[in-house]
This record gives sequence, C-alpha cells and structure tokens, in this order.
Amino acid sequence: MSTDQSTEIKRTVFIISDGTGITAETLAHSLLSQFEGVAYRQIRIPFVDSVEKAQDCVERIGEAATKDGIAPIVMSTLVNAEIAALLRQTNALVLDFFAAFIAPLEAALGVKSTHTIGRTHSSVNSSAYTARIDAINFTMAHDDGISSAELDKADVILVGVSRSGKTPTSLYLALQFGLRAANYPLIPEDFERGKLPDDLRKHHHKLFGLTISAERLSSIRQERRPDSHYASVDNCRWEIDQAQKMMRREGVRWLDSTTKSIEEIAATLMQTVMIDRRAY
Amino acid sequence: MSTDQSTEIKRTVFIISDGTGITAETLAHSLLSQFEGVAYRQIRIPFVDSVEKAQDCVERIGEAATKDGIAPIVMSTLVNAEIAALLRQTNALVLDFFAAFIAPLEAALGVKSTHTIGRTHSSVNSSAYTARIDAINFTMAHDDGISSAELDKADVILVGVSRSGKTPTSLYLALQFGLRAANYPLIPEDFERGKLPDDLRKHHHKLFGLTISAERLSSIRQERRPDSHYASVDNCRWEIDQAQKMMRREGVRWLDSTTKSIEEIAATLMQTVMIDRRAY
Repeated sequence: MSTDQSTEIKRTVFIISDGTGITAETLAHSLLSQFEGVAYRQIRIPFVDSVEKAQDCVERIGEAATKDGIAPIVMSTLVNAEIAALLRQTNALVLDFFAAFIAPLEAALGVKSTHTIGRTHSSVNSSAYTARIDAINFTMAHDDGISSAELDKADVILVGVSRSGKTPTSLYLALQFGLRAANYPLIPEDFERGKLPDDLRKHHHKLFGLTISAERLSSIRQERRPDSHYASVDNCRWEIDQAQKMMRREGVRWLDSTTKSIEEIAATLMQTVMIDRRAY
Repeated sequence: MSTDQSTEIKRTVFIISDGTGITAETLAHSLLSQFEGVAYRQIRIPFVDSVEKAQDCVERIGEAATKDGIAPIVMSTLVNAEIAALLRQTNALVLDFFAAFIAPLEAALGVKSTHTIGRTHSSVNSSAYTARIDAINFTMAHDDGISSAELDKADVILVGVSRSGKTPTSLYLALQFGLRAANYPLIPEDFERGKLPDDLRKHHHKLFGLTISAERLSSIRQERRPDSHYASVDNCRWEIDQAQKMMRREGVRWLDSTTKSIEEIAATLMQTVMIDRRAY
C-alpha cells in the first residue's frame, strides 16, 4: 500500500462501514496491494449507521472528487440498503464488499441474512470473545519467559533468541486467533546448559521455534543497544547457530522469520502446530 | 459466527488463499455473522500458491461435500486465475473476494493489477511494517504504566481503572493500526491525590479514558482475585466513580467499554483522538 507522493496517480479511497470499518479496510488493503504506482490517501469513516451520516459521506466524497479532479473510490461494508444506495448515487467507483456476496449466500444457505448493523465485532458477551480476551491476558503474562506457570494451558510456546519475532507473533496469535501463545527467549545460559529448560521440554509438542538471519537480527538489536556485543553480527550468528542446534537436537519445528511478516509467521505456525485446531 | 451443533443447517466453509488467508477469513466472518441459525465448520487453507495445492483443495472440497451431503462454501482470495478456475470447477458455492473487484479497480485506476501472490502481508521491509513493529514494542514497554519515558512519542495514552480494557485495546491499536499506544491504570493513590500524574497531564491531548459498568468490572475482577475487596461491586463502583470524576475534571475524553469489543473501542477512539491522522 503506497502513499508515495511522487507516483503518477493520486486517488482518494474512502473506507465506509456501518461498523468499525476493519473488515472493509482489510480487503481494501489486499486489493490495493495488487496495484503498483498508485498513490492515494485513505479516509476511513466507521459507524455510518444512519441516513444522515451517509449524506455526510456523500458530501465528503463530492469534496474529494472536486479537490482531486478525479472520482474517488469507495470501498464499503454496509448492511443497510438505503445507506448503500445513497453512496451509489455519487460519481465514485463504489465497491460494496457485502452486496456482492449476501445474495448468493442467502441462496446457498436457504436463509435470509439478518441485515443487522455492526454484527462483525459486536459479540462482546460471546464465549469466543471471552476466550480471546483470556488468550490476550495469558499471552501478556507469558511473554518473554516471565512465567512458566500454567504452560499446560498454552496453545503454543514460541522459542527463539532475543528479537527473533516471538513477542509480536504471540500477540498476533492471541488477538487475531484467540490462541494462548507463550514465548520463551533462548539465552546463552540455555546454550551452556545444552538443553531446553525442563518446564518447556514437558510441553514439547507445543513448542515452535523462530530463527532469523544474523544480519537482520543484528540490525534489529542495533536499534535497541547500539554497538553492543549483544547486537554484533558475530554474537548474533553464534546465538542463532546455538539455538538452531538446540532446536534440531530437541526436535523442535521452526521457521525463519527473516522475510516473513507476523501474519505469515502466524499462518505458517498454525498450519504446522495447530493442524487439528483449524476445523473448529 | 455460530458453531452451535443444535441448529438445523451444517455446512463446511473453506477459506482458501494464496497468502495467509487472513483477509478472506475476515470478510468471511463478517458475511457469516449476517446469518443466524447456520452452523458450520471452517477449514482455512493458506498458501495455496500452486496448481498442485489447488488440486489438493479440490479433493478436500469433494470429501466435505460427500461427508456433509451438501455443497460446501468456498471463500477465497486468489490472484492466480488458473488456481481460481480450478476451485470453480467444484460443486461448491465459490465466493472469490478478489475476482469481483480487481477488474473494476483496473478500469478506475487505469493500470493492470500485478497478480502477485501474497502481497497483502509480505512487505516486511517496508517503512510501514517497521513502524508497526516499533509500535508493538513501544506499546509493550508502556503497558500498565510500566514506564512514563518517551510518552512524547506515544500516539495515544489510555487511562482507566484496572481491568477496564486498556491493555487489549492498546495491543490492538499497535498491531492493527501501528499506533504507539501507552496505557496507565488509575489507582486509589491517584484518586487520593485528586489529579492525574504530572507525566500524563503534560500529554493531555493524547489521553483517552475507558470506563465500564461496576457489575461488569466486578465480574472481570472476580476471575482474577475471587472474593477480594478489589473485585467487590462496591469497590468497583467507587473506583469507577472516582475515575469518571477525575476524567471530567481534567477534561479527558472517554468511552464506556462495557458492551464494546476491542475493535469497536479502537475504531471509536481513532475517530475521536486521531481525527487528523486518518487521512494519511
């Protein structure tokens, strides 16, 4: 998603939803990442749940069209037909992420959709939501090896050297998928001991390792402790080598996070470790 | 999204993507939340980036159709036309979240899409991705009032009584939006002092409060410390009352998190505090 000022085309993209707009924004980013050399500014307008608010959107779309000298693009998730119709009256390209799919789903499922506004992110009292909040709390309490209590309740335990991506991945697994993801840093003391701590070995089937290239790790650590032994490429290479030897010896599955985003690490990990959990 | 066994219709929903499948899953959940009384099992198959893997999907779709006695539903984000075509040959209802929108976008933008696999979550080296990881690290270092260093770099500082939803919201803001979200718990010492700590007052324009009903707070705290003074409804009511008085006195904007999901809190907060940041 480029917001580079120098490229040729500059468009305003409105993300409009009667809920948070997060679903619309997610698909919008995916679609726009398929286009190169397109510069745009994004305007997200959530909670458009009345005709009045929709009319305000119509005005803002008109203003953007005038300012840009070209029709804006509107990407929306709107369940109310009247609100959706108002937006279609603008001269913007309107991509309605709901309208296209609700009708075929109604036909296939044999039931009418409820057309209820704000359903996606509103089930605060559901057991799935409660489990997700519990997972976030668990993950925070088990970040960076803080605690090895209740590791039997963990869905996954990430291991790897400091700054190999364990914390962001753990948090993402908890927030996006409601998984209880502990993480434990492999440190020189572990390498000297020559084996994983007993607390972890007990949960062997839950362990998943992250490794990373020495150069990338060094550059990440430089930000934290510039010119330290900790951040030197030589030390990084040594730690990574030791960690990989240990994971190989202990039969821990792992992946290289060097060129992977936290979403890619999370999806790969779930495919590997959670294979039985996907069909819930 | 219901997986209740007792409801009448039971369908298998495949989420198939050449990337992580997270975009497809997000829209799938939004769409399915519009249908009540539909029970299904979800099978997410990420990284389907070859004809071979697509053929494996076709097989699994066929098996599910046989097992369920009814055609599965496939929701996909696939940029490769050959892979997408293979899935359309099954007897499943295939909702292709890319195909419907790429052509109109190409026409509107005047450029062809790159049809590059895995673009959505792959820009590990982009400045936006680095900023997001920095935001996650910042947020972790500023959880629960741990540190008031570098609060000048925060995008937002959440305040509220213990267990009012600050930590999950802060993490979500960092992970989803790349915002540096600090959070600070309002505790009895603050109420006795009668004002916010000076470290926070300096950043008044960044403050955002969360409040919650006494009953809900009490039930959340009960989980943590059963039958404690901390968790009693009376104490919760007193703390919330004190916190609201303080926020009112100090002119801090706030919202009630009682019935709101972290997505809804985050979207509302960004609309309120970050109003100038949305158009980036």
